Amino acid sequence: MTTYSLLILPGDGIGPEVMAEVRKVIGWFEQNRGLSFDVSEDLVGGAAYDAHGVPLADATMAKAQQVDAVLLGAVGGPKYDNLDFSVKPERGLLRLRKEMDLFANLRPAQCFDALADFSSLKREVVAGLDILIVRELTSGVYFGEPRGIHDDGNNPENEGGRVGINTQRYTSGEIRRVARAAFELARKRGNRVCSMEKANVMESGILWREEVQWVHDNEYPDVELSHMYADNGAMQLVRNPRQFDVIVTDNLFGDLLSDAAAMLTGSLGMLPSASLGAPMANGRPKAMYEPVHGSAPDIAGQGKANPIACILSFAMALRYSYDLGAEADLLEKAVEKVLAEGVRTADLMGPQGGTPVSTAEMGDHVVKAL
Amino acid sequence: MTTYSLLILPGDGIGPEVMAEVRKVIGWFEQNRGLSFDVSEDLVGGAAYDAHGVPLADATMAKAQQVDAVLLGAVGGPKYDNLDFSVKPERGLLRLRKEMDLFANLRPAQCFDALADFSSLKREVVAGLDILIVRELTSGVYFGEPRGIHDDGNNPENEGGRVGINTQRYTSGEIRRVARAAFELARKRGNRVCSMEKANVMESGILWREEVQWVHDNEYPDVELSHMYADNGAMQLVRNPRQFDVIVTDNLFGDLLSDAAAMLTGSLGMLPSASLGAPMANGRPKAMYEPVHGSAPDIAGQGKANPIACILSFAMALRYSYDLGAEADLLEKAVEKVLAEGVRTADLMGPQGGTPVSTAEMGDHVVKAL
Ligand SMILES: CC(C)[C@H](C(=O)O)[C@@H](O)C(=O)O
Ligand SMILES: CC(C)[C@H](C(=O)O)[C@@H](O)C(=O)O
Repeated sequence: MTTYSLLILPGDGIGPEVMAEVRKVIGWFEQNRGLSFDVSEDLVGGAAYDAHGVPLADATMAKAQQVDAVLLGAVGGPKYDNLDFSVKPERGLLRLRKEMDLFANLRPAQCFDALADFSSLKREVVAGLDILIVRELTSGVYFGEPRGIHDDGNNPENEGGRVGINTQRYTSGEIRRVARAAFELARKRGNRVCSMEKANVMESGILWREEVQWVHDNEYPDVELSHMYADNGAMQLVRNPRQFDVIVTDNLFGDLLSDAAAMLTGSLGMLPSASLGAPMANGRPKAMYEPVHGSAPDIAGQGKANPIACILSFAMALRYSYDLGAEADLLEKAVEKVLAEGVRTADLMGPQGGTPVSTAEMGDHVVKAL
Repeated sequence: MTTYSLLILPGDGIGPEVMAEVRKVIGWFEQNRGLSFDVSEDLVGGAAYDAHGVPLADATMAKAQQVDAVLLGAVGGPKYDNLDFSVKPERGLLRLRKEMDLFANLRPAQCFDALADFSSLKREVVAGLDILIVRELTSGVYFGEPRGIHDDGNNPENEGGRVGINTQRYTSGEIRRVARAAFELARKRGNRVCSMEKANVMESGILWREEVQWVHDNEYPDVELSHMYADNGAMQLVRNPRQFDVIVTDNLFGDLLSDAAAMLTGSLGMLPSASLGAPMANGRPKAMYEPVHGSAPDIAGQGKANPIACILSFAMALRYSYDLGAEADLLEKAVEKVLAEGVRTADLMGPQGGTPVSTAEMGDHVVKAL
């Protein structure tokens, strides 16, 4: 029998709470579907800093490299805001992304029909929304060198006397591989890719545009490709998000645009994400799954968090890492059923009411629906 | 009698059309208010490239340095998409910003009550919206060196063999001066500033946060200051834009966030902007004014463009460059009156109808209302 390995990194804030609900779901699959998961758990972010003085211990990093999939809760919180840059909770997350080489970050922005009224946008603008942002995740200004803050000597024209530098750097190879991921995904969806950059002001954006076009012309001529400046992209996401199918963009633009897109749906607590790398020996990609929402320190430990984004992230793991598509479908259907029944954590509680539940109760409902 | 100098740069696409309507407004002020404008006109962007092979001639640049104010229409268009980076229409605009040292770009996002239904957001989310984005305009990744695309030697790990680089670079002095502009403006409004960066992943963002905080603590302790990561900022603008008063952010984040904010209002054709530099000998800042909308090549030359954003940009010039606050008020009131009367260019024509007018007719209506 296959055993599926999973490293759980709950992290900070509401991370541990939502992860506890995923544990219930895993238990259900083990008991009722005869699946066998080899689950280990470890620390990341502020929790790891508290224990080890670093936001990701080397031993944890080594474990992450060996498992079929990593499931991460969330990192960060005000407690850690004044830590030195090199040990901030976020560095743990960034180290995982970089060392596992998870170059393609899939961020679906889907508007659940039962929840369309939660959007700040008009129902007719977002109902049925289903776009997928593919964000480059291991390069660009997040990792480029040189970087840092240095003293500006005695430059009389620089009041304050310091200079802060980061480098946006992309190779053609880095652009091509994430473009391929986007085109592959588009073929299984609406067959359209829109690539976003600022080629009008940045040379790295020109390279981005040219390499995406190259991959299209040489390998995916059947997919419809368009290019858009990222500022216009931000506008168009607000104006008419349903014009898009797959969006491919760099690490920093992807950070802003995917968050804006997620917020359009009005149900951030529902959105999963997958970060995928190159195929491993078993043919499946290296992978880490995370909810799109953050650590939400303001509601942590109160049983208010919505565990669905994390549960759906596990569903993505079932599909992409374990090749258990049927089980992923089953889990997604169970979530839909619970929503249709009007079961609601606080963030989903709207004017139409519903049955208010805690984090743990939501997990129980999903397991029952399974 | 004072003569107010103005350099008009209509640029490309709908630029010349909307500028013609500003000319009418200027004429009205000369004839009816005894003001004297010394108006000159020149080329920028693609239009300048067509005439001179560069997107801004040196003589035009020199003129811009001497006038009280520059009024620019818009630059760019598909005709120029394949030009070399160094002569793209945008380079003309960027040269003006850089050489005039217009470091503070003021982008108001205001929702006009008569037009609130044009927003893709719910009326209750945007009605009464009035935020001001102050974007740093002369530094950051737009201008940082090194930059460019180069060959990656025979790096076997880089399929495609090229590298694209841009540099995000800020000095403390650059951050402090734009922060001061934001705090000054906040004092005349809601007295709140929210500063946005990615201090969790970029050292230049840490410097940004620290220097804004420094200016606050030492010079503007009376203004309320908060900090937000730019990705969360993109989310919050979609979720609840009215939580903000003044937002201050860097050149690239400002590009995306101000466009998203403008689109929230639903009436892009209405929004002016001002780019201000250091005070000149007369005490007024060096300044360039532009509508927020682009060159809209798809409707250029058809009399469909809305001239109001450009007319309101001239109103900003009256206020900030000529110290003619009463005249600015008068012009803004005239625009409001025309809107209240239901006069509508195509972009403003909604389900509630109105009197459809062309670009020129809209200009005539504004003059009549004056
Ligand atoms: C937490 C932070 C480092 C991270 C990022 O900037 O990538 C987050 O915003 C995200 O989008 O996953
Ligand atoms: C035209 C372009 C160079 C410009 C920019 O990126 O700054 C525009 O988008 C703007 O916001 O004024």
